[in-house]
Amino acid sequence: MRNTPTDPLPLAQALIRCPSVTPADAGALGVLEAALAPLGFTCHRLRFGEIENLYARRGTGGPHFCYAGHTDVVPPGPAEGWADDPFSGLVKDGTLHGRGACDMKGGIAAFLAGLTDYLAANPGHPGSISLLITGDEEGPARDGTVKVLEWMAGRGEIPDMALVGEPTSRARLGDIVKVGRRGSMTAYITLLGTQGHSAYPQRADNPIHRLVRVLHRLIAQPIDQGSEFFEATTLQVTGFDVGNTANNVIPGEARAMLNIRFNDLHTSASLTEMLHAALQAEEARYEMRIDCSGESFLTQPGPFVDALRRAVVRATGAEPALDTGGGTSDARFIARYCPVAELGAVGSTMHKVNECVPVAELRELAGLYRMVLEEAFA
Amino acid sequence: MRNTPTDPLPLAQALIRCPSVTPADAGALGVLEAALAPLGFTCHRLRFGEIENLYARRGTGGPHFCYAGHTDVVPPGPAEGWADDPFSGLVKDGTLHGRGACDMKGGIAAFLAGLTDYLAANPGHPGSISLLITGDEEGPARDGTVKVLEWMAGRGEIPDMALVGEPTSRARLGDIVKVGRRGSMTAYITLLGTQGHSAYPQRADNPIHRLVRVLHRLIAQPIDQGSEFFEATTLQVTGFDVGNTANNVIPGEARAMLNIRFNDLHTSASLTEMLHAALQAEEARYEMRIDCSGESFLTQPGPFVDALRRAVVRATGAEPALDTGGGTSDARFIARYCPVAELGAVGSTMHKVNECVPVAELRELAGLYRMVLEEAFA
Repeated sequence: MRNTPTDPLPLAQALIRCPSVTPADAGALGVLEAALAPLGFTCHRLRFGEIENLYARRGTGGPHFCYAGHTDVVPPGPAEGWADDPFSGLVKDGTLHGRGACDMKGGIAAFLAGLTDYLAANPGHPGSISLLITGDEEGPARDGTVKVLEWMAGRGEIPDMALVGEPTSRARLGDIVKVGRRGSMTAYITLLGTQGHSAYPQRADNPIHRLVRVLHRLIAQPIDQGSEFFEATTLQVTGFDVGNTANNVIPGEARAMLNIRFNDLHTSASLTEMLHAALQAEEARYEMRIDCSGESFLTQPGPFVDALRRAVVRATGAEPALDTGGGTSDARFIARYCPVAELGAVGSTMHKVNECVPVAELRELAGLYRMVLEEAFA
Repeated sequence: MRNTPTDPLPLAQALIRCPSVTPADAGALGVLEAALAPLGFTCHRLRFGEIENLYARRGTGGPHFCYAGHTDVVPPGPAEGWADDPFSGLVKDGTLHGRGACDMKGGIAAFLAGLTDYLAANPGHPGSISLLITGDEEGPARDGTVKVLEWMAGRGEIPDMALVGEPTSRARLGDIVKVGRRGSMTAYITLLGTQGHSAYPQRADNPIHRLVRVLHRLIAQPIDQGSEFFEATTLQVTGFDVGNTANNVIPGEARAMLNIRFNDLHTSASLTEMLHAALQAEEARYEMRIDCSGESFLTQPGPFVDALRRAVVRATGAEPALDTGGGTSDARFIARYCPVAELGAVGSTMHKVNECVPVAELRELAGLYRMVLEEAFA
């Protein structure tokens, strides 16, 4: 390898300067293509609906290592909240500022830098390397990673392992390797009663009372105590609405919205059954709609996770914790196909105003990613 | 007395033809004054706010019998729902139609007819007779009976007994004498929590969960089993609203509305304490507003109730049941001053479209009211 590591900063700045708020690409994927082609990658631009995606691969052999990420960003929010233009890529006091600096244009630039150095040192490395970069991670996630994976599967290009570069580190780079995510589902329940006068409740059937009993049954005790790699499943009632303004009228319907974050002891199907059982235990007449934005998944400890651990220890001197907390990412889609884990920058400013990342952290992350490639192909 | 009883129908029709939807008087009280003056009544028109009221008394001695009622009516609602003009006073197939026919212009006309016949037969009867007729029973009830009673108290004219002519009969005339009413109060509760992300409930405080626990505690078991003359107290949650549309956001507040109909085992103050206790048992931060539209009251069995029973038996041949069910009426205000009971027509069409009352029932009611006066002064 060369003596001076490749600096991820210029590419990170070039990406931030593309205002690629979902669903806009704003030239971001072109910046990446221009960086990848000289490294020997074959680039495929894949448009689904209004979304631009990029799949780039170098080599055809196994094992196939895939780096997954996204160039779309969440909106900057009120401009007056920002100290600087959120799309300027300004460096101030050694920190790179701008929307996407940590989530996750900085991470992609770090991977490209680490990749460049890895390839320079290992031009004839075994296996192959690909990048799956979507423009629809922060949006509905319908025309991004899911569709690209289907396209890859159709060509027989499913990876053997995938690393998602989300900013998952908590306090310092590499303290966390995310090896799974909780699932998330939302239940929309309408409980049907019989309207009536509150002075004559025996002639009505109060749907609020039944719904209170159903919900009380569901929140009375924890759903589980967590599992080896997961926190406990949580159920939060996030909505309860009736819309009745007359104090003496028992309404005919009551609606609730429940959000469940669940571990690997459950599936959305088993939890749906649990909800039906609670409703039926109160003899409720009801309608229920389930919206599952992702099942839980876990990449079991094994060679891929071990390779990531070794790379982190080499780069930072400390063992990473294996973690499954937090919200959802596109890793939930990749988990259907191959072992997947997440490792990236410290995410403390993601989605906030004045999003930023220390330049030194990006450079450290580039080195870490180079070591990930070394260990993955060791 | 004269051989042919006075017919209440013409006066009932004249009253219905005044479209006296609260707060409008529309000439209704003038119709009554014109009927009462020739019978020897001194009439006082009492205006409070935008409400016209009438207090009329004949004689000054004791005992003082008061007939209380109202000439205001609820709105007719959609005109297309009515077979005929709701203010025409049309008689069809022996039935008087129109808004107020049973609640309670028909009842007032029946009392005037019975009164006319009673006075004809008993020109020198003992005691005195008054009418307290308000135009604000169906409205907020702020400028009606309450204010007239205060005015009467100021003049030393508090009755010894009062009969409210609401259509309280259930299946046939006189089957019910209403000797009390449940109280009614509404509690508006806002439960304060801490907003947060549903993926991290440990950093939030879900006000819906606390409110569900509070309400579950309140509805888990009956508040009481009823008392000698009263049904059981009922608590109905008639509103529960949050207004949150984001399925992944734990809201900061949740609001509930509770309507309680309570018997003589409670007061609005004791029930307010019960609500505070339930909220505090769940360690809730909350705001609560109480709106009590009437305490419960009971006119104990005694000479006045006995007089009403005797009159009903004479007029109908059957014993009335003493009852305290149903909603509220202005009797709750009169109960603060003197024994009060309610006896009137069958109320099956009150507040509905095509409100009506059989003419024969009005004539029977006039005879019953004549006997009430006879028994009250016996």
